[in-house]
Amino acid sequence: MEVDGTGELASAAEELAIASRILADQRVFDAAGHVSMRHPGNAGRFLMSRSLAPALVTAADVMEFTLESRACDAAGRTPFIERYLHGEIYRKRPDVMGIAHGHSPAVLPFGLTPTPMRAMFHNAAFLAAGVPVFDIRATFGATDIVISSPERGGAVADTLGDKSVVLLRAHGFIAVGPSLQAAVFRAVFTNVSARVQIQAAALQGPVAALDVEEGSLADAVNLATVGRSWDLWKRRVTTTGAA
Amino acid sequence: MEVDGTGELASAAEELAIASRILADQRVFDAAGHVSMRHPGNAGRFLMSRSLAPALVTAADVMEFTLESRACDAAGRTPFIERYLHGEIYRKRPDVMGIAHGHSPAVLPFGLTPTPMRAMFHNAAFLAAGVPVFDIRATFGATDIVISSPERGGAVADTLGDKSVVLLRAHGFIAVGPSLQAAVFRAVFTNVSARVQIQAAALQGPVAALDVEEGSLADAVNLATVGRSWDLWKRRVTTTGAA
Amino acid sequence: MEVDGTGELASAAEELAIASRILADQRVFDAAGHVSMRHPGNAGRFLMSRSLAPALVTAADVMEFTLESRACDAAGRTPFIERYLHGEIYRKRPDVMGIAHGHSPAVLPFGLTPTPMRAMFHNAAFLAAGVPVFDIRATFGATDIVISSPERGGAVADTLGDKSVVLLRAHGFIAVGPSLQAAVFRAVFTNVSARVQIQAAALQGPVAALDVEEGSLADAVNLATVGRSWDLWKRRVTTTGAA
Amino acid sequence: MEVDGTGELASAAEELAIASRILADQRVFDAAGHVSMRHPGNAGRFLMSRSLAPALVTAADVMEFTLESRACDAAGRTPFIERYLHGEIYRKRPDVMGIAHGHSPAVLPFGLTPTPMRAMFHNAAFLAAGVPVFDIRATFGATDIVISSPERGGAVADTLGDKSVVLLRAHGFIAVGPSLQAAVFRAVFTNVSARVQIQAAALQGPVAALDVEEGSLADAVNLATVGRSWDLWKRRVTTTGAA
Repeated sequence: MEVDGTGELASAAEELAIASRILADQRVFDAAGHVSMRHPGNAGRFLMSRSLAPALVTAADVMEFTLESRACDAAGRTPFIERYLHGEIYRKRPDVMGIAHGHSPAVLPFGLTPTPMRAMFHNAAFLAAGVPVFDIRATFGATDIVISSPERGGAVADTLGDKSVVLLRAHGFIAVGPSLQAAVFRAVFTNVSARVQIQAAALQGPVAALDVEEGSLADAVNLATVGRSWDLWKRRVTTTGAA
Repeated sequence: MEVDGTGELASAAEELAIASRILADQRVFDAAGHVSMRHPGNAGRFLMSRSLAPALVTAADVMEFTLESRACDAAGRTPFIERYLHGEIYRKRPDVMGIAHGHSPAVLPFGLTPTPMRAMFHNAAFLAAGVPVFDIRATFGATDIVISSPERGGAVADTLGDKSVVLLRAHGFIAVGPSLQAAVFRAVFTNVSARVQIQAAALQGPVAALDVEEGSLADAVNLATVGRSWDLWKRRVTTTGAA
Repeated sequence: MEVDGTGELASAAEELAIASRILADQRVFDAAGHVSMRHPGNAGRFLMSRSLAPALVTAADVMEFTLESRACDAAGRTPFIERYLHGEIYRKRPDVMGIAHGHSPAVLPFGLTPTPMRAMFHNAAFLAAGVPVFDIRATFGATDIVISSPERGGAVADTLGDKSVVLLRAHGFIAVGPSLQAAVFRAVFTNVSARVQIQAAALQGPVAALDVEEGSLADAVNLATVGRSWDLWKRRVTTTGAA
Repeated sequence: MEVDGTGELASAAEELAIASRILADQRVFDAAGHVSMRHPGNAGRFLMSRSLAPALVTAADVMEFTLESRACDAAGRTPFIERYLHGEIYRKRPDVMGIAHGHSPAVLPFGLTPTPMRAMFHNAAFLAAGVPVFDIRATFGATDIVISSPERGGAVADTLGDKSVVLLRAHGFIAVGPSLQAAVFRAVFTNVSARVQIQAAALQGPVAALDVEEGSLADAVNLATVGRSWDLWKRRVTTTGAA
């Protein structure tokens, strides 16, 4: 992608880099993890950083990809191997505008055990519709776990279906949203809700999580107010608070 | 509220802003959460920040509200939707001078499970009198969880009764106190005691929490010494330590 | 205490202030907690900070007390109410040269449940001899929990007996040692070992903690090498690393 | 070791010092812990810091040892007592180029209980081949736990066998790798995987960890991409990011 310093595309690349640094700062990402957004002017393209630790991403690292996950102009930069999970989800889910994928330790247990992930509070309302688990072994046998092909990416997208989050067994999770900010918000609160659910499991008795209807109502509030969280998180990862 | 830089009201606004930043710094609040205080010169009013991430609140963000939760002089500022929980508690509890509401992950499990929250140590003595749980679904059916009306706020206040803390199912908690500093102290140690209780649940056998009489005696000590904690916490969120 | 800037006593006050700040920095202390040492030149006296958040203590805050826990020269400074637990332990345990008392959340569960605290690894070897629990209610009935008299302090010292750590039900813990540095080391690793034991309790089966003989042998190594930990911790709380 | 400021050996000492500081920064090491590497030009030697808190190690602290764990040129520096575990592993495992040993609280429970440590996700793939436990008591009876002799080091190396990690009961763990960077990576993700497994144990049902074949395939990816993590971690512990 050519970042000419002006216009919608440059602004999108800047926001995407901020999203990457936010997810590292909020400890959803560690030395790995990647976030993407659909191209603001071309629904058949998406933007994603080159392969780089997410805390270090700047706008200059942002590349443009087709929905086949091919770099439009690599310019010598190495893309993430797992770009296919992004491309295949954008292809199958026209409503999705942002995608985040990480390996948060708090979320991993729910991809490893039969316990379904549920929405522990209103900020995690998007989980109330259900959280499917993708076990790569079921379709592809013993693998290196990496979503390194269109086929693997497509299988992940199929498992995600119309939901907001999919867990990858022994790997991590993917959160999607109707905007980049919403995808980041959902990645953060998937992580928080997982921590709460593990702690609740240590106590006695059933867990009165949000039901589907509550989840739907509460998620609308989240989407309307996501900017307040974004602004705070952004301040922490930009020098001026207005980058 | 007009902050003229002098007098009791300006001082109160400054303390309230510090309280907000303390609760963010102590990780009781995240990007959300709000704290209020009764107006120092008018028991029929309360002070509360405009809608803003709690870590960012300064005295200039503090607004004045009637007990009907109407802004006295909004001056273009947007109030928190959930101001009604503050107003209704101030109306029904003349002894309450400060209120804090947050979504701490450690506290959430106790609003979701049948396990009663108890006082794990002297600093959490105010919990020994009992910690009721408000389930919005019981009165209002499926909702967006938000305490966005006088009716919802009133129901929360009714569930709180004469206690110091009420849990909101799948939402968070509210701590109240006979001073702003006491409300902040109780919010902090509600959070700490919750962490201890979850850890104690992982061990064998009954938990010898504070009983009601011990709680009452120990809370008197807390209230008399709350200034030591406040002073330390305040230093961390003010530039000079004397703001 | 008069700190004249030279000599053994001034040096001791400086080390004691560093110990207080180390225990805050290592998160054994929060806004509360206190540490003391026996007077280096008079076994019938001990040194302890005035009542102050432990992160803020400097040498000028250090006061001198008799073993009856009376200030020798208060000079307008307010002592900690709980100085009696220090005085009574120094009186009954001539081998003890340093004492630390805090409310670490990880340790509290072991004072609340029947699960005995055990030594999870060599750095916590001093726990292998056994960790008694003091329940103030057993002797004094319903109280405010505070160790605010010679009688209460004496009862704590009796429960401690010849051990290195005593837990106070619904209150906290006390670690003692043959030097100030050893007491600090034991307070830190009581906290770490407690965290490990809670995590081990989440797994299946028995816990192969250090036995008494292993604990005795390993503690000798700890005492011989405590300076390495102390030097690192001290660097974090002093400006020059050589204060 | 003489560091002459140029050449392969000076570069190795610099990398080893960075590895030590990384493991402290990533909280795998606390005030203790040590990491070593095989001599880049002499397979019969290894490099390891003098006895020092790992956060403080610089290239000048690096010493050279024979595989009998004798210092080649101590130059007044005190070696770690536990150098024998390094020497004996290098002697018995020619494929091992780096070794890290620490006491992470999250890992300790797996050396204390019968629960086998398993690979919770792809970054911990090296655990899938199995994680043996060394109980010093089984061979040497009651000891001070320290690996302070060739005999003890040899017994540890025997228990490690051809695996990547060995747990030491009531002591800590050792991670080895085909490069210094791989050993550091494995130490970090042994710690993360342990945290995940403890959390998974709090949930219901079996844990679908990586199987042996998946682990083997995924570990190859880790080894090929370890540089990305290393570069990020290194930036945090070097002033310029290029030291």
